[in-house]
Amino acid sequence: MSAHKESHHPISRSPEDLMKRLLASLGPLALITQPFDKQAYEMGARHAGGVARAVVRPASAEEMSWTIKELLAARVHFVAQGAVTGLVSGATPTQDGSQWVLSTQRLRDVLEVDVINRSATVAAGFRLSDLNKAAAEHGLTFPIDLGSDPSIGGMVATNTGGARLLRYGGVRENLLDVQGVLATPEGTQVGGARGLWKNNTGLSWKQLLCGTFGAFGVVTRATVKLHPLQKQTATALLAVESSAMAMQLLCALEADLGEFVSAFEGISGAALDAVANHPGGSVLFPHTPRYAVLIEISSAIGLESGLNLESLLIHAMEKQLNNGLILDAIVGKPEQIWRIRHSLSEAVQGLGRMIAFDLAVKRSSFALFRDRCLEVVAKQVPSALVCDFGHLGDGGVHLNMVVPQDIEAARIDELRDEIYDLTVLEYDGSFSAEHGVGPYNLKWYQRYLDDATKDWAHLLHFHFDPNAKLGNIRLD
Amino acid sequence: MSAHKESHHPISRSPEDLMKRLLASLGPLALITQPFDKQAYEMGARHAGGVARAVVRPASAEEMSWTIKELLAARVHFVAQGAVTGLVSGATPTQDGSQWVLSTQRLRDVLEVDVINRSATVAAGFRLSDLNKAAAEHGLTFPIDLGSDPSIGGMVATNTGGARLLRYGGVRENLLDVQGVLATPEGTQVGGARGLWKNNTGLSWKQLLCGTFGAFGVVTRATVKLHPLQKQTATALLAVESSAMAMQLLCALEADLGEFVSAFEGISGAALDAVANHPGGSVLFPHTPRYAVLIEISSAIGLESGLNLESLLIHAMEKQLNNGLILDAIVGKPEQIWRIRHSLSEAVQGLGRMIAFDLAVKRSSFALFRDRCLEVVAKQVPSALVCDFGHLGDGGVHLNMVVPQDIEAARIDELRDEIYDLTVLEYDGSFSAEHGVGPYNLKWYQRYLDDATKDWAHLLHFHFDPNAKLGNIRLD
Repeated sequence: MSAHKESHHPISRSPEDLMKRLLASLGPLALITQPFDKQAYEMGARHAGGVARAVVRPASAEEMSWTIKELLAARVHFVAQGAVTGLVSGATPTQDGSQWVLSTQRLRDVLEVDVINRSATVAAGFRLSDLNKAAAEHGLTFPIDLGSDPSIGGMVATNTGGARLLRYGGVRENLLDVQGVLATPEGTQVGGARGLWKNNTGLSWKQLLCGTFGAFGVVTRATVKLHPLQKQTATALLAVESSAMAMQLLCALEADLGEFVSAFEGISGAALDAVANHPGGSVLFPHTPRYAVLIEISSAIGLESGLNLESLLIHAMEKQLNNGLILDAIVGKPEQIWRIRHSLSEAVQGLGRMIAFDLAVKRSSFALFRDRCLEVVAKQVPSALVCDFGHLGDGGVHLNMVVPQDIEAARIDELRDEIYDLTVLEYDGSFSAEHGVGPYNLKWYQRYLDDATKDWAHLLHFHFDPNAKLGNIRLD
Repeated sequence: MSAHKESHHPISRSPEDLMKRLLASLGPLALITQPFDKQAYEMGARHAGGVARAVVRPASAEEMSWTIKELLAARVHFVAQGAVTGLVSGATPTQDGSQWVLSTQRLRDVLEVDVINRSATVAAGFRLSDLNKAAAEHGLTFPIDLGSDPSIGGMVATNTGGARLLRYGGVRENLLDVQGVLATPEGTQVGGARGLWKNNTGLSWKQLLCGTFGAFGVVTRATVKLHPLQKQTATALLAVESSAMAMQLLCALEADLGEFVSAFEGISGAALDAVANHPGGSVLFPHTPRYAVLIEISSAIGLESGLNLESLLIHAMEKQLNNGLILDAIVGKPEQIWRIRHSLSEAVQGLGRMIAFDLAVKRSSFALFRDRCLEVVAKQVPSALVCDFGHLGDGGVHLNMVVPQDIEAARIDELRDEIYDLTVLEYDGSFSAEHGVGPYNLKWYQRYLDDATKDWAHLLHFHFDPNAKLGNIRLD
């Protein structure tokens, strides 16, 4: 079948031919071949990257389609790349220097806000911050809140989540339309930018291209739903006895604060200490609590309406202080509180050698699950310092920890396997709650995904990328 | 390939054998063969149904899997069916009496609310009302608002929308997990009920089984996200000059009322008149306006919080009365207002021979599009009375109209084609915004869907239903 499809290109082009053709058609900005210039396209945001044979950067969907045809005709392997902010090495080439990087960086031909439709159509190369700057001019926002500033194409491919998923969902729940190019010999362009809020006519390319990490095609454009920009927020940092109490508190506060709850983040005492000891770190509590919670409530309705979120939050908190669910509370310092939240990852990394996890379980399993994780770590690597934090409101936890520099790799591997087994096999949880799947965690994908799902992925790979040239992982 | 797969069952069983085996294994409640008893499974909610060879009703996912294996072994064709409330004939057998109905009615083995996870796991045979009754006991709700009371399995398969999609999304945006059975010779059970809010690990059976109308498998169980139950609502019926003004009003009110807007429904003057003349119908305005809007705002926060939605709504309305966007307003009669909305379909049908459409365009195209539709109708069928209404907040419109009883079928066909062409080809809209695709509208699916999407559907049909025995449509 593969050979049959390759017959579209009976004569395979040499790499030199390919480069000449790309340069002639796409211009000099499109091609990067010098080692120094390639570096930015080779490094992953967290895990080490690889070596790119070359980087090609088409500037429109048409150029993307043509480029993919050329790459396939030359029988080269290529990896789609956005802003390289992902954490699973999904957008970087392998070490052997054989793969090309197909960058969406120059896909910036449209960024249009449709105010009446409350949507934006945006080319894959724009950043989240570009989109939100344009949306804010119309009192609107794309409410995916992340620590990094990814490209729109990368966000769609990765189906990013973030701190406000609890209220708004992830990318998939806010994606009205998507356009992409498949790795078929024809470089088939698929999808649209119709911007319909409703279109219930069966299969949609959103289902193929969003949350599949570029495995089946390259995202070139997205139409996303925008939300009214928040006009007031209230934020608090709450000390609680345990993560179990934090979950009880979540339910109690959701009952009192309803649709306003836009973030509910858990932070362990050790993670708070890491931030306190970090350069420029804040200490807000007189004594580090065992566990803390950041709650944010927000509304697109301003104070002039009579709605006062800060007093609403304080009232709800007082009730739970009286109920004993809250031990101590800090309010009125939103910037300091969010700075703590956003420094966590770096502060923990600053303590030494970090081992990171991106897990999720049901909210109702969270507290027990976390306790079990701590037991596993204490047994396997007693010297590890667990500094976990995460999106409690959606059951997510970054079970990050610091381990001695000289610990054997085998011990870490065992620990990882045991934590993932606990998560997936015992707690029916996710080994990749929001970061997606890439070479970094493909091993666990292969371990935990069922055969029927892999068969289906195999079918799609075979259909949409018949020569197996796209991407640095296969989901089958 | 099909023949190859059928080799799993080298000996085809006779219909009599099949019935005996089903009866012996599933018990007498599972099998319906008498003409009188079959009737309820043969009639569509709007369009005429067909004739079932027999009806089989397994009572668990395991029984469903076994039943599908048996049906395939006997080489019979079967259509999955929930509560038969759909409007595109998607769940009824053909006229020739050859197809079986595979009912999910007795799949009622689980309805569990997980309060801390804010989710419910529910077997396909329960109704929306069953789920919401169970959820309400915990102050929670599944916020899909429909005129009918469908089964959960049907809702998932059809990806139902409804009047509150504007705020909450449809089924897909609220579906945490799904279980189903494929029409493979093995009756493969797929999916899960893990209830994770986040699990970003690639393909999910939600993407295959939700919004594909049972074409690729039968939904047996769903885990859905629940929302805090509303504690206050405010509703108004507003007279406006035109649908263009209604859209301007939508933007103005969304800017002032933010996340509270839970419904924004448009109603034409002719549709209001139809309700007024309907038995028990209400007249709320002294003179019928050219166009009207129902707005509902709601919150899970009660009045004790200081938030008063009714005064908020009145304040926002007064502003737009002064701006001239609102001509007249009725507030404080939520039940009467919603009764008008819910009587629309029946009232219009009561006027005579109804021709119905389920269209959507971008909100920003809506007003122009509606004007163009009215022009097409006036030209093609001058005697038609257009009584349109719809979900303006998401660009949806039920362009329903009453035509003379004796009008030629060819004229109606031409009208339909012209309206659909206008919707899809000129306005990039949807020919089935929320009702899905079934035999009733398959013709337009075939006309408007692109080849790449149909190829993909073909691939999936071939893989998940290799003997082509499931369903009354093919999406390829």
